[in-house]
Amino acid sequence: MPELPERLAPREVTDPDVRRSYALDATVALAPLPDDFTVVRARDVDDVVAVLEHAQATGTPVVPQGARTSRAGGATASDGCIVLNVEGLDAIHEVNPLEGYAVVGPGVVNAALKQAASREGLFYGPDPASWETCTIGGNVATNAGGLCCVKYGVTADWVKALQVVLPGGEMMRTGHRTVKGVAGYDLTGLFVGSEGTLGVVTEVVVRLAPAPDPALTALAVFDSLDAAVAGIVALRLDPHRPCLLEIIDRTSVRAIQAFGDFGFPDDCAAVLLVQSDRPGHVADDLARYAALLESAGATDVAVAADAQESEALLAGRRVMSTAFESMGGRLAEDVCVPVGRLAEFVRGIEAIGERRGVVVPVSGHGGDGNLHPSIVYALDDPDSLARAWQAFDDVIRLGLSLGGTITGEHGVGSVKVPWLGLELGAAELARQQRLKAVFDPLGIMNPGKVFAAPPE
Amino acid sequence: MPELPERLAPREVTDPDVRRSYALDATVALAPLPDDFTVVRARDVDDVVAVLEHAQATGTPVVPQGARTSRAGGATASDGCIVLNVEGLDAIHEVNPLEGYAVVGPGVVNAALKQAASREGLFYGPDPASWETCTIGGNVATNAGGLCCVKYGVTADWVKALQVVLPGGEMMRTGHRTVKGVAGYDLTGLFVGSEGTLGVVTEVVVRLAPAPDPALTALAVFDSLDAAVAGIVALRLDPHRPCLLEIIDRTSVRAIQAFGDFGFPDDCAAVLLVQSDRPGHVADDLARYAALLESAGATDVAVAADAQESEALLAGRRVMSTAFESMGGRLAEDVCVPVGRLAEFVRGIEAIGERRGVVVPVSGHGGDGNLHPSIVYALDDPDSLARAWQAFDDVIRLGLSLGGTITGEHGVGSVKVPWLGLELGAAELARQQRLKAVFDPLGIMNPGKVFAAPPE
Repeated sequence: MPELPERLAPREVTDPDVRRSYALDATVALAPLPDDFTVVRARDVDDVVAVLEHAQATGTPVVPQGARTSRAGGATASDGCIVLNVEGLDAIHEVNPLEGYAVVGPGVVNAALKQAASREGLFYGPDPASWETCTIGGNVATNAGGLCCVKYGVTADWVKALQVVLPGGEMMRTGHRTVKGVAGYDLTGLFVGSEGTLGVVTEVVVRLAPAPDPALTALAVFDSLDAAVAGIVALRLDPHRPCLLEIIDRTSVRAIQAFGDFGFPDDCAAVLLVQSDRPGHVADDLARYAALLESAGATDVAVAADAQESEALLAGRRVMSTAFESMGGRLAEDVCVPVGRLAEFVRGIEAIGERRGVVVPVSGHGGDGNLHPSIVYALDDPDSLARAWQAFDDVIRLGLSLGGTITGEHGVGSVKVPWLGLELGAAELARQQRLKAVFDPLGIMNPGKVFAAPPE
Repeated sequence: MPELPERLAPREVTDPDVRRSYALDATVALAPLPDDFTVVRARDVDDVVAVLEHAQATGTPVVPQGARTSRAGGATASDGCIVLNVEGLDAIHEVNPLEGYAVVGPGVVNAALKQAASREGLFYGPDPASWETCTIGGNVATNAGGLCCVKYGVTADWVKALQVVLPGGEMMRTGHRTVKGVAGYDLTGLFVGSEGTLGVVTEVVVRLAPAPDPALTALAVFDSLDAAVAGIVALRLDPHRPCLLEIIDRTSVRAIQAFGDFGFPDDCAAVLLVQSDRPGHVADDLARYAALLESAGATDVAVAADAQESEALLAGRRVMSTAFESMGGRLAEDVCVPVGRLAEFVRGIEAIGERRGVVVPVSGHGGDGNLHPSIVYALDDPDSLARAWQAFDDVIRLGLSLGGTITGEHGVGSVKVPWLGLELGAAELARQQRLKAVFDPLGIMNPGKVFAAPPE
């Protein structure tokens, strides 16, 4: 690999073990690690500019990276690349209650932004499950969702403006800090969700809203899947939509209870977790939700009276990932379908699991139609892994056939590259690559992610 | 001009007077009408495809057009063009309460969409002042704002997905109908606000929200501009932001009162109009707003008790445009500045009016920092018009110096082309034209709008 410019030498990670840790993200390792890569930890925008000048001049691929919580292999090292970690750009530059925004570096952890907003009585919505560790830069790169999207939308709904460094080191700005602004094209939405394939985000202006009340939780138990979906439908149609509406199916509930007793019944078809945070109306909402859920067929609804009870009801949800991981290897799905097709989708997934001989606990953001089936395989059995990948493919195709998308919030990353064309079609795939070339003519930004790497 | 294909012959407007009416929009006529243009009124998507196939094959410019309510000359005919009017694509294809969206043609009038949503207990937010006549296609093209943006955001915040026909007739889709979706780049935000320079929008999927309560109005009178701005600041910082927060300055109030008695005091520095529509809390909010406005220094606050009183308080605002037009010719400004710089901005505009010897009533969406100074000139006096254009330039430069944008919601159109580079810089201007070329390689889409027409 071409040697880094001198100013970057102190930013290079040389310890072999530490260096290797930057090659991976939270996605199951899909391929052997490359040997030939360099890791640079940027401390400021000038470091990012220096990397992108150098990369463009030498034709070196760049993999931008935050806290590496991607579940789609969006931030893994590729052969011959510079892994450009921007966790060090973690300054909260401004929290502006009057204009209603904050200006932050891409390395700011989601939870830290929420906290800074909260100190001013304000609120930053998006809450990926990894909110205590994931960074805003990664949230922007993947247009991250989370648990509160059912009420508050996704990252794109909260990003007003960006500063981005392009290959070659040019700095560009998108969007507006003013409340309105329509001068020229707004490229903010193009960069949000672009998964590091266009440039490196070095500053993010996010919208802030007034803080809601602390949320309280209800847990509803169902002995049929149709009833659980009817409960979701009833809550989506309520004029005051919940700020959290999660579904956990029978297989997932069993996995959680096998891991520890979190008070879920062993024999239910599904449970729903529901929250309200509406200022002054949390208790009213929960009472109304409970009645709606009972009308939909819930056999039991537990409503938290305070924060402690609320947390207890969520505890099972919180250990879910760990519970699944104790079962074996896991392919994490992220398909989103219309809410009206949820019951068909869950039933179809159950059938796929049976046909392929793999266990598939289904859970996720039911209120959004965005489920995360976990396809569990035996770690020491290549045949089981092969069947898991077949089930993975089946689930994606089922989702598309129901009017869904191959990825609701995790991104295409490296994992779903083979399926993107199925959703977009060849003409759109080609057009998006021509768009990429406007920003990245040499194709050095995160090659092999989202789009297949061009043949060497 | 090359002859239209046979299938479009019945769609062509041949009556000379009717034809000429399609050459203009709501913007003051800036240049003589071109003689050489064709008007096609599309009835369906196939007509749009046929026009764009023909236009690409013959290198004919296309000017997409809805209800022609643009105030920036975004929809005016250019020499040798086909004016492609899509008002006929006015079907409301679907209103889906469960998934929370509507699918509509670009010719659907904003008010018709609001009404269709309202029949399902739902709400479509954006409300440009021309909402009773303007179309959703035009709203998308300009990323239209309106009066309720202070609470509900702009058109871009409500558009989920688009169907677009590109030069050559290719149909593309952007975005997702599902609640979440991150497969590939989301080009929705690129098309929203692109002012017809990339393609023709033929279908729009908009987000719908639960309907709020009917809004009620308060009117606050101030004898100093600083106090009025303090009132805006106080209301923006309130945890329950108003759904309308308009400012009308002394000159505007006088113009309104000269037009008819709408109950405004003649000697005030400014008035604010404020509304709440928060379900179950309209009266609480207005009482709290009134107290905040009095603390900020309002000399009088009138709070409507019912819909009729509410309308009466708004009546002066509604006749404002007509009142200004009775004063002479008018250049309509649309600069947006940070809310914290509003007082400086209004004072600066007053100084510009005095320096240039033109009357400049200032009013607009104070809660957004988005003002519409009207630069009034004598219709029969070329020198007055020249001074009005100097004032127009001064106001734009003042807005930029305060951290603002040259256009908050009207768009660049043909009027603000000379100023776009001031805001974006040469590199960004060139990049955006390269992006345009990905969709429109021959440069036939609305040439001369947004970007200067290339030299012939």
